[in-house]
Amino acid sequence: MTEHNHDLVNQIFERARFIRSLGIELISFGDGWCESQLNVAPSLAQQHGLVHAGVLMTLADHTCGGAAATMAPEGQDVITVENKVSFLRPASGPVLFCRADVLRAGKRLVFVEAKVETEQGGDRKIVAKASSTLAFIPLKLG
Amino acid sequence: MTEHNHDLVNQIFERARFIRSLGIELISFGDGWCESQLNVAPSLAQQHGLVHAGVLMTLADHTCGGAAATMAPEGQDVITVENKVSFLRPASGPVLFCRADVLRAGKRLVFVEAKVETEQGGDRKIVAKASSTLAFIPLKLG
Amino acid sequence: MTEHNHDLVNQIFERARFIRSLGIELISFGDGWCESQLNVAPSLAQQHGLVHAGVLMTLADHTCGGAAATMAPEGQDVITVENKVSFLRPASGPVLFCRADVLRAGKRLVFVEAKVETEQGGDRKIVAKASSTLAFIPLKLG
Amino acid sequence: MTEHNHDLVNQIFERARFIRSLGIELISFGDGWCESQLNVAPSLAQQHGLVHAGVLMTLADHTCGGAAATMAPEGQDVITVENKVSFLRPASGPVLFCRADVLRAGKRLVFVEAKVETEQGGDRKIVAKASSTLAFIPLKLG
Repeated sequence: MTEHNHDLVNQIFERARFIRSLGIELISFGDGWCESQLNVAPSLAQQHGLVHAGVLMTLADHTCGGAAATMAPEGQDVITVENKVSFLRPASGPVLFCRADVLRAGKRLVFVEAKVETEQGGDRKIVAKASSTLAFIPLKLG
Repeated sequence: MTEHNHDLVNQIFERARFIRSLGIELISFGDGWCESQLNVAPSLAQQHGLVHAGVLMTLADHTCGGAAATMAPEGQDVITVENKVSFLRPASGPVLFCRADVLRAGKRLVFVEAKVETEQGGDRKIVAKASSTLAFIPLKLG
Repeated sequence: MTEHNHDLVNQIFERARFIRSLGIELISFGDGWCESQLNVAPSLAQQHGLVHAGVLMTLADHTCGGAAATMAPEGQDVITVENKVSFLRPASGPVLFCRADVLRAGKRLVFVEAKVETEQGGDRKIVAKASSTLAFIPLKLG
Repeated sequence: MTEHNHDLVNQIFERARFIRSLGIELISFGDGWCESQLNVAPSLAQQHGLVHAGVLMTLADHTCGGAAATMAPEGQDVITVENKVSFLRPASGPVLFCRADVLRAGKRLVFVEAKVETEQGGDRKIVAKASSTLAFIPLKLG
């Protein structure tokens, strides 16, 4: 991973106001992968008090972006083309973990998967699984 | 549409804290469809100032839930099974509109589609398209 | 539509041996859309005698390719990046109709949707809905 | 795995005429997984001589059905609700391998993933990845 990739992943998490407002934190990343976590606040709930599907999709999407960014060529940024998320179990807190892995990076497109897990009594369970396509685009400075 | 459906759609929007915290508003609904809108605040931005993909997915997912709720049998609620969203254009404000339509409602599963549009100078453009599967589940009172 | 687009759509259907072996026929196409049909043979059945999901996916995918090809820039061909298909009803014969429409064509990517319908007693019913991303790539001559 | 599950997986592959006509073979299965393979014939090609996306989707879909069938409750069969397939690389022969794994089996729905690989000079490469939802339905005898 180059300094470009390192900076890009950090900026993707630091500069996205929506991610900061939800409380999503970058934990770790390496070539082709990225990990994040989220402390579940009451403001993230759907109508039954569970974590809203939109929160899980946001967490998965952004972490896929982080994983794709570790593979971006010099001068390139990443954007999401499409994202599918399957909701395997109802999700609750106190913490959600997300890990995204690049399946395949081409010249223009990157295929990434992510899983979101909860931890209850030391036991992690998968609550959502995402399959996403992202594209490399020229980096805008600023 | 029965009183059950009417109440269910309203509750889905009123009681979901995440939806209220984002500013998503229920606009209108009828048999098999639901419309919502969102005034875009700076806190919903991704790293380049555009609307975050997670916001578009949340808006589409929740409005699909509203459309599915208009078809829920007596005593039944709805949950999202999976959702795929394609990002057709960069999305910015000031307002996002979402319309969800039921493609097919079975006894247990509902297939719903949604489009998210922006308005610029009186001209609406589609920015995202969602394809979602939801399930009917027994309603929990409370 | 240019002669390039016209030829490309025709070649996509004529030169694909798998499409011909299934009996899929190109019916009509125009700017941003394509229609095809398939006479259902017993060899296309799954274990209960219904049309196999793979047949519906193939029909939808190829017709999405036809619709995307009507928008391909000069010297460009199309390939499928990803495809999601929802199975709304059990599908049987005698004929399946497919219509694909381009949602959005960018410089590199095209978003296309398709529906597959059956006809029973003059009444058409939708049995599958597809949402696909395709990419433009340089055309290989031959 | 019960005798019901064992029989169901075998029947899903033996009785599906489309699967036999393509040459897809059941290789092995166990609790929550299924493996199949396909010798690539010229009749499975798209317009450039590569394996048609529809073949990859069919192989992935049917093998997901096999994996889901290993988890079907007594007296229950499986059907595909929706399937998304990402095409990571161009696929060619001589042989395609598919492995499907159940991510989560509920009472009514099963989430399954599958990968399709090619082998070239002893080296396997992933060419497609599928994410599918299936439903349990009452088994029809016959």
